[in-house]
Amino acid sequence: MQGDRSASDRPCDPRCLLKSSAGLNEGKTGHRAVDFPVAVVLPAAGSGERMGLATPKQFCTFLNRPLISYTIETFERIPWIEAIVVVVAKESHDLMLHIVHKFHHTKVKVVEGGTSRHRSIFNGLQAFNESTEGSSLPRPKVVIVHDAVRPFVEEDFLLKITLAAKEQGAAGAIRPLVSTVIATTSESYLDHSLERAKYRASEMPQGFLYDVIHQAYQRCSEFDFEFGTECLHLALQYSGTNAKLIEGPPTLWKVTYKRDLAAAESVIKETLSLSACLISGTIAETVELARTVQKNLAAHNMTVDVFSCAKEYKELLSKTRNFIQISADGERLSEIAELIKVLEETSHALLYPVVVIWVNLYMSEEQSHRQKADELTPIMDLSMKAKQRNILLYGIRIIHSKVPELWEKSAERLSEITAALIRDRNPAFTGQLLQA
Amino acid sequence: MQGDRSASDRPCDPRCLLKSSAGLNEGKTGHRAVDFPVAVVLPAAGSGERMGLATPKQFCTFLNRPLISYTIETFERIPWIEAIVVVVAKESHDLMLHIVHKFHHTKVKVVEGGTSRHRSIFNGLQAFNESTEGSSLPRPKVVIVHDAVRPFVEEDFLLKITLAAKEQGAAGAIRPLVSTVIATTSESYLDHSLERAKYRASEMPQGFLYDVIHQAYQRCSEFDFEFGTECLHLALQYSGTNAKLIEGPPTLWKVTYKRDLAAAESVIKETLSLSACLISGTIAETVELARTVQKNLAAHNMTVDVFSCAKEYKELLSKTRNFIQISADGERLSEIAELIKVLEETSHALLYPVVVIWVNLYMSEEQSHRQKADELTPIMDLSMKAKQRNILLYGIRIIHSKVPELWEKSAERLSEITAALIRDRNPAFTGQLLQA
Repeated sequence: MQGDRSASDRPCDPRCLLKSSAGLNEGKTGHRAVDFPVAVVLPAAGSGERMGLATPKQFCTFLNRPLISYTIETFERIPWIEAIVVVVAKESHDLMLHIVHKFHHTKVKVVEGGTSRHRSIFNGLQAFNESTEGSSLPRPKVVIVHDAVRPFVEEDFLLKITLAAKEQGAAGAIRPLVSTVIATTSESYLDHSLERAKYRASEMPQGFLYDVIHQAYQRCSEFDFEFGTECLHLALQYSGTNAKLIEGPPTLWKVTYKRDLAAAESVIKETLSLSACLISGTIAETVELARTVQKNLAAHNMTVDVFSCAKEYKELLSKTRNFIQISADGERLSEIAELIKVLEETSHALLYPVVVIWVNLYMSEEQSHRQKADELTPIMDLSMKAKQRNILLYGIRIIHSKVPELWEKSAERLSEITAALIRDRNPAFTGQLLQA
Repeated sequence: MQGDRSASDRPCDPRCLLKSSAGLNEGKTGHRAVDFPVAVVLPAAGSGERMGLATPKQFCTFLNRPLISYTIETFERIPWIEAIVVVVAKESHDLMLHIVHKFHHTKVKVVEGGTSRHRSIFNGLQAFNESTEGSSLPRPKVVIVHDAVRPFVEEDFLLKITLAAKEQGAAGAIRPLVSTVIATTSESYLDHSLERAKYRASEMPQGFLYDVIHQAYQRCSEFDFEFGTECLHLALQYSGTNAKLIEGPPTLWKVTYKRDLAAAESVIKETLSLSACLISGTIAETVELARTVQKNLAAHNMTVDVFSCAKEYKELLSKTRNFIQISADGERLSEIAELIKVLEETSHALLYPVVVIWVNLYMSEEQSHRQKADELTPIMDLSMKAKQRNILLYGIRIIHSKVPELWEKSAERLSEITAALIRDRNPAFTGQLLQA
């Protein structure tokens, strides 16, 4: 029924989730194309009653982080975006400041919203207005207005909107209609249905020359402030600027219902699970096991880089948030502790939980039993400390069977468990010693 | 931005997921109100390229069952619905028959689709047409047309549509527009935006007097068959029947993108996780532990019924798909094996995975270590057999510490792990012995 033919609704570039936290902000095409100041206004003053939750949806949390922080991160990652003005309700002001501080958002200014969406956006624009009291931001050439609850907008599309806004004065994202739109009679009977080809859904982001949108708000009526739905429409009516409409990807979707939070979480989890780094050690059996796991995880759509020793971690931090360490015969946890220390120092787990899996290979059943009791407590303790830093540590024991079929089976189960731990990132199972 | 103010997007009645498989089909209000034959046509011939998946989305699987089976189940559960005609593409015909057989769908007839959505719906209607060759179904008074990819439609709303269709000849679900609808110029500039209050999104289900919709399809043009989007519109144009429009709940949402599958899965999982049955045993410590777990799980929004002995299982099958058994000092798995046998006999896990958690309470550290080695293999073996029947068996060991703080901590962790196992229903972790 829908016009859209896009292949996927996952952000194109999985690496994008890594760049940011690694602090590497090397942008894409944008940096060269955008030679003028660009800022963002994120209206986030809504109460979100639609979610069926007490918390407004922009503040709902998944993977230990509120939705709005994911959206902010998306813009912060883009070097040609200079400032992000987040507009929140009075009662959310402190919470928002806390979020900005906790997740090290550096480009954000928090301002208070008005009694309607348009008043909130206008308040956001005023933050760039020298005339207002207090510290004000440098006025941008182009301002992007986006929803706090559309976290998956991508740089390429923002670039299109920004350049079109610079050229035309205004630009907005559109999407094909997902349902037939019908006009209803006052007695709620079918009046007529619209010809779909002629219409589009107006979405976010939208971009404007600052002067165009600011003037529109200065001139628009109280009625517009209260009931108007379209910035594009105000720009046309009060600044005579006709917006360029650009078809956006499905990743522009808006988190509206409780179920959408689950969808957003799964999109992030899937993206985080595309890669892993495996430390094999140097013993023949662990190296062989590493190769097998690498092969099996490829079937789970996971690219695993295998390394023989731990020294190379640092260079890998920008590649993945999943680490697998294989050690033999219950070697102590020192290597894992070392890795966790590195992860903490680089605050690699600030924005997304990092998974560390300790695979313990035993050469014999007996060996395994002798060790087991002493293993559990140390990994449990270490995992509890790590969890406070958003690092999820799990253990898996595997016994090297002399029987090829059994050995293969164990290696398969090891891979399955590893894939599941990485995919789910479930804090409830940290510190466990699972059996492959 | 949206008009909808509904509180939640989860099916109102969690029990609804249980009724069906327990074979109890006691309907709601509907059974009395509907004294005429009603049937359903489910067009499912789409290719679903929008999902970015090889499989058409109606056949995508979560919790071991394809999406379309969940939708079929919804209708099968309703006693006043007599037949469900599922229209599939030629290449999906065998797959669909397999699904019907595997999940014991008894009201379904599978027919082949046409080259467009309307042709497929018409083919579905023809299944009730005596004139067609082969076995035909009795012609219903009212036929409901629904999307195979809207699994969460509820009986109450279907009743509204059905009664309105009987009375008016046609009825359809509408929803508030989620985005502003705009008309675009040929150069893709903003032409004008529609006044939202006047328009609605037309959704599914829709209901018709059989004769009204059948006549409409017999009279409509090739163009309508190819490009028409609205059955309601055809009913108006070719049968002079003006459809009654009824605002539907957000649960009518349509699984469109890959992310929507994750959302659907989470809705089901949440509903399945609302209740559990706990067998405490009769030892003072296990009974006390049971009470604590019951209290803690209430905080996870889970209602736990506690029973002292296993004999009462059967009466509980219609209440939950989650079972927790506490036993002391590594008693053998016999009780668990017995429970699993009961679950298999009643095919309680046919439609939804059943979770069984074996909690093993040890009175001392030493006791625990002595037992551990012997425990693992049996539960692993039992869990593998059970998994083939869609029963997920997990083990948790907990040691009764004399230190109150430690004991309380363990009980808390036990509850957290239990809640997580029930919520996630992850087959990768079955047979594991976790440590609380």
